[in-house]
Amino acid sequence: MYVVQYNDDIVVIDCGGKFPDESLLGIDLIIPDITYLEENKEKVRALIVTHGHEDHIGGIPYFLRKLNVPIYATRFTLGLIELKLEEHRLLRDSELQTITSDSKISLGDMDVSFFKVSHSIPDCLGIVFHTPEGNVVHTGDFKFDLTPANNQYADLHKMAEIGKKGVLALISESTNAERKGLTPSELMVAEHMDEAFMKAEGKIFVSTFASNVNRVQQVVDSAIKTNRKIALLGRSMVNVVQVALERGYLNIPEGMLIDARDIDNFASNKVAILCTGSQGEPMAALARLSTGNYRDASIYPGDTVILAASPIPGNEKYVSKIIDNLFQLGAKVIYGSGSTTGMHVSGHGYQEDLKLMLTLMQPTYFIPIHGEYRMLHHHRQLAESVGVEEGNTFIIKNGDVVDIKNSVARQTRKIPAGDTYVDGMGVGDVGEIVLRDRRQLSEDGMLVIVITISKYDRKMLSGPDTISRGFVYTRESDDLIKEVNNLVKKAVNEFQQTNEHRWNVMKQDIKKSVGQHLYAKTKRRPMILPIIIEV
Amino acid sequence: MYVVQYNDDIVVIDCGGKFPDESLLGIDLIIPDITYLEENKEKVRALIVTHGHEDHIGGIPYFLRKLNVPIYATRFTLGLIELKLEEHRLLRDSELQTITSDSKISLGDMDVSFFKVSHSIPDCLGIVFHTPEGNVVHTGDFKFDLTPANNQYADLHKMAEIGKKGVLALISESTNAERKGLTPSELMVAEHMDEAFMKAEGKIFVSTFASNVNRVQQVVDSAIKTNRKIALLGRSMVNVVQVALERGYLNIPEGMLIDARDIDNFASNKVAILCTGSQGEPMAALARLSTGNYRDASIYPGDTVILAASPIPGNEKYVSKIIDNLFQLGAKVIYGSGSTTGMHVSGHGYQEDLKLMLTLMQPTYFIPIHGEYRMLHHHRQLAESVGVEEGNTFIIKNGDVVDIKNSVARQTRKIPAGDTYVDGMGVGDVGEIVLRDRRQLSEDGMLVIVITISKYDRKMLSGPDTISRGFVYTRESDDLIKEVNNLVKKAVNEFQQTNEHRWNVMKQDIKKSVGQHLYAKTKRRPMILPIIIEV
Repeated sequence: MYVVQYNDDIVVIDCGGKFPDESLLGIDLIIPDITYLEENKEKVRALIVTHGHEDHIGGIPYFLRKLNVPIYATRFTLGLIELKLEEHRLLRDSELQTITSDSKISLGDMDVSFFKVSHSIPDCLGIVFHTPEGNVVHTGDFKFDLTPANNQYADLHKMAEIGKKGVLALISESTNAERKGLTPSELMVAEHMDEAFMKAEGKIFVSTFASNVNRVQQVVDSAIKTNRKIALLGRSMVNVVQVALERGYLNIPEGMLIDARDIDNFASNKVAILCTGSQGEPMAALARLSTGNYRDASIYPGDTVILAASPIPGNEKYVSKIIDNLFQLGAKVIYGSGSTTGMHVSGHGYQEDLKLMLTLMQPTYFIPIHGEYRMLHHHRQLAESVGVEEGNTFIIKNGDVVDIKNSVARQTRKIPAGDTYVDGMGVGDVGEIVLRDRRQLSEDGMLVIVITISKYDRKMLSGPDTISRGFVYTRESDDLIKEVNNLVKKAVNEFQQTNEHRWNVMKQDIKKSVGQHLYAKTKRRPMILPIIIEV
Repeated sequence: MYVVQYNDDIVVIDCGGKFPDESLLGIDLIIPDITYLEENKEKVRALIVTHGHEDHIGGIPYFLRKLNVPIYATRFTLGLIELKLEEHRLLRDSELQTITSDSKISLGDMDVSFFKVSHSIPDCLGIVFHTPEGNVVHTGDFKFDLTPANNQYADLHKMAEIGKKGVLALISESTNAERKGLTPSELMVAEHMDEAFMKAEGKIFVSTFASNVNRVQQVVDSAIKTNRKIALLGRSMVNVVQVALERGYLNIPEGMLIDARDIDNFASNKVAILCTGSQGEPMAALARLSTGNYRDASIYPGDTVILAASPIPGNEKYVSKIIDNLFQLGAKVIYGSGSTTGMHVSGHGYQEDLKLMLTLMQPTYFIPIHGEYRMLHHHRQLAESVGVEEGNTFIIKNGDVVDIKNSVARQTRKIPAGDTYVDGMGVGDVGEIVLRDRRQLSEDGMLVIVITISKYDRKMLSGPDTISRGFVYTRESDDLIKEVNNLVKKAVNEFQQTNEHRWNVMKQDIKKSVGQHLYAKTKRRPMILPIIIEV
C-alpha cells in the first residue's frame, strides 16, 4: 500500500495482502497497518487499485471495514475485487468506480490520470497524480512487452508525453532490478506451448496463475490448434476465467469449455486441463492431482503436465515435491525455470525495462518500491545510470514519508505502519505474546499441573494431576511424570511451611523446579502451567 | 544409509542425519530407523563411511549407542567423525579404523576395496564389495574433476579396471541427474576468487561450507596472492580447519592465520575472513555479521562479502534475507548462482559425469540413489542411454530390498526403515500424536478449563477457571471467556441432571460446545483441555 497526500487530500494506492512465513504460527494473512489512515479518515478520498494481484488487493475487505471510501480500478481488476468482496459479504455496501487508462478523476486538490502498462494480469495501470507541487507517477507493476498476448499494449507514447511534461517524482517497482537485460515477451510462451501441445499424446494439464489471463488465452489457443477441449480445475481458475469471459478479456469458442466431470468422456488426446496450484499450494488442484486425490480428474502415465509459472521464493520445496509426485504417476512433466522450458516469462521488468521507464519519465526524484532492499539498491544504481541525480533517490521502508515542498524532497519522518496479522476472524488481535506462546508450544508442547488446595488449612486436597500435550506422550513416560509430581509435592510442602500467601510465588517455584528437571532429563522446555485451585 | 548383506554378513554404508522441515515442530534431527540392524545385531560387521558430510555422518553417534561396530573411513572423514563423537562423549569407546583408497578389508564373506572420487570435501571413497555372487559398487557422492584443487584426483584408471572385471550392481548417486553437461571444475572458482580478491578494497568475507576444504584452500591461496591474513569465524570453520591442518589437507603458511579478535588490528585491505553460515543458518557467523551481532568482527561499508556456496533447496529465503541485510550494511556482495558468480561449483556430477561413471562401470544392474524420485528417474534414463538394459534399473524407496541370486536381481521385499526423530535427548519418542498436538497448539494455541466438583453431591465447588496460551490474549477478550464459562456451567448443569457418571462424557460435551462457540466467534480451533477435579 502506498499513500499520496497533498495537503488535506489522501489517495491510497493498492491494499495488498501477503502470506505469512512459517514463523508466524497460525496467522492466515498479513495486511497493512492503516492506523495513519484511520487517524485521518476525513481526508481519505479514494483507493486506487493498479491491478488485481493478491499483493495489491488482498487487504481490501479489511480496509473497507474501517474506511469505506470509493475504489477506482479497471473493469478486470474490479471483477476480481468483487469476487473478494462478495466472499466477505461487503459487495453491496462498497462504492466501486470503473476507470480506464483514459479516465481523469479529481480527488480533492489532485487530478489523477492513468496509463496502461504490461504485466502478468490484464488491465494494469500506472497512475499520474497532478498536484500543484508537480506530477507524481506510480508505475504499478510492469514490464515492457512489445508483442503482448491479447493486445494488451502499454501506453508507450503516453508515458513519453508524461515524461516530457515533467515528473517531480517517480515511484517505480523493483522486483527484477537484479536481472540483466529485457524481460522476454509473452510471445515466447505461445511458441513453446504450441510445441508441447503438438508433441503430447495423453491429456495435458497446464498449471498457471488463474489471474494470468493472457497465459490462459495462450493455452486455449494451443488447444484450439490441436483440437482439444478445455476443462478448468480449481476454484480460482473457475472464478477468474468466468470474470475474464464475462468482461471480454478471454476468448474461448462456443462449446470448447467442458465440465471437469466430463473429462473422462473424451479421448485423452482431446482434452487439455487448466489447473491452479502452480505454487505448490497443498490444497490446490495440482497438489491433489499429484497424489491422486482429485475427484474430477486423474493423471495417468503418459499424460503431460506443464508448469507454466515460476515458484515464488519460499515455495520451491512445495513445488519440487509435487513434481516428484507427478513423475511417480508416470507423467511427462515440463518444469524448471521459464528460460529453460519457455513456459513462463516474468511479468516484472528486468533492468532494461526499468531503465526504459526511468528514461521515459525523466523524474527529478526517484522512489524505488516493491522489492527487497537489495533490489531497491540496484534500482537506484539503474536510475543514476540513466540520469537521476545522486542523492535524489529515496530508498524507503514501511512508514517512511518523503515530503516534497518547493521542489525539494526530504525523507525525515515516519508514520505508524507495518504488518497487521489476520488470524481467523481476528484482525490485529494476535500479537507478540500470543505468537511467542505458540512458538514455545510448537517446539516442546506443554505440561499442565493441577493441584487443589484447601482454603482453610492450605492442605493439598487433590493432585498433582499432570496433563501433557505435544510434550512426551504420558503413557510412555510414567517415571518422568512421577518425578514431576514429587517435585510439585515438595514445592507445595515448602510453601506450606512459610508465611507466604501468594499462590503466584508457589507457581513460580513449581515452574522453575519442574522446568529444570525436565530440561536435564529431556533437553526440552515445554510450557509449564501450574494451576492451583482453592476449595 | 545403505546396507549390503551377503548371507550372514551385513555392512552398513554411511549413517546420515537430515534436518527437519518446518512441519516437524520441535524436532532437532532426523536419523535412519535401524530396527533391521538391531534385529540382526550379530551380523553387522562394520560401518563404512564414504565421506564426512552431515548427511553421511550425522546419525553416527545415535547408531553407535545401539550398535558399537567398527567404523572404517579415510583420515579426513574420521577427523570429522571424531569431532562428532567427542561432542557426544562416545569417542573413547568407539573403534575407528583408518583406511585409504588402497585398503582391502575382509568383512565376513565379503572383501571390500575402494576407489577415490572427487567431491566437495576431501578424501572421498567409492566402495567395491567383492561377494561370491559378484561385485557391487557404491559410488559415494562424486563428480569428475580433471583439475581438482589440492590434487584430489579421482582413481579413473582404477574405476576402469573395476568395470572391466565386471560389476554386478552399481549403486550411484543422483543429485544432479537433472542437470545437463559436465560439472564445472573447482579450478573455475580459483580464477574468480583471485579476481574478486584483487578488486576488493576493504575486508573480504568469504562464506562457504567449512568441510569444503579445497574451497577453503583456494580462498587461502587468493589471500596469499593479495597479501592478506586469514581469520576464521564460526565454530565449525575453526574445528574443521583445525582437523584439515593437522591431517595435512590444508596448507596455510606460518603466521598467516590470525585470531578473529585481532581482525581490527590489521588494515582492512590486509584481512580476509572465512566464515560459516552460507546456508543462512540464523545462529551462524554470516547471519550474525549481517545484523551487526558478531562480537569479533563487523562488516563496514565497502567490505566485500562472497557467498561461495549455493543454498540447499529450502534455505533460499534465509540466504536471501542475509544478502539483503549485507546490502543495508553497505557491503559489496557477490551472490547468486555459481554459474553467474563463478564462486561455486557443485560437488555432485551432472548428467555427463553420471554417464561416465556408468560407462566405466558397465554394471548389469543399476540402483540410482541419493535424490528425489525425479532425479532417480532421470538417472535411470541416463543409464539406459549408455547401455544398462531396460528393466535392470531398480528405483527403490527407504526399506526396499534388491535381492540378487544366481545373477538375477529382484525387488520384492521391504525391511522396516524410515525416519527416526531426535528431539532434545529423546530419540524416537516423539511420534505422530505428539506432533499432531504440537501442530494444533502452534496454529491456535489452547484453552485450559478447570472445574472442581464435589465427590459427594456432584456440585461445582470452584471454577470454571480458564487459562489460554497462544489463543487470544485473555485480558483483551473478557467477553469471550465469560461466554465460555457460561457454556461450561451449562454443560455441568446438564450433566448433573443425568445419571451419567463418567467424567469423560462431560469433558467431551464441554470440548464440543466450547469448541463450536469459539470457532463461530473467532474462526480458530484452539486445543480445549477440560480438567475436572473431584474433591
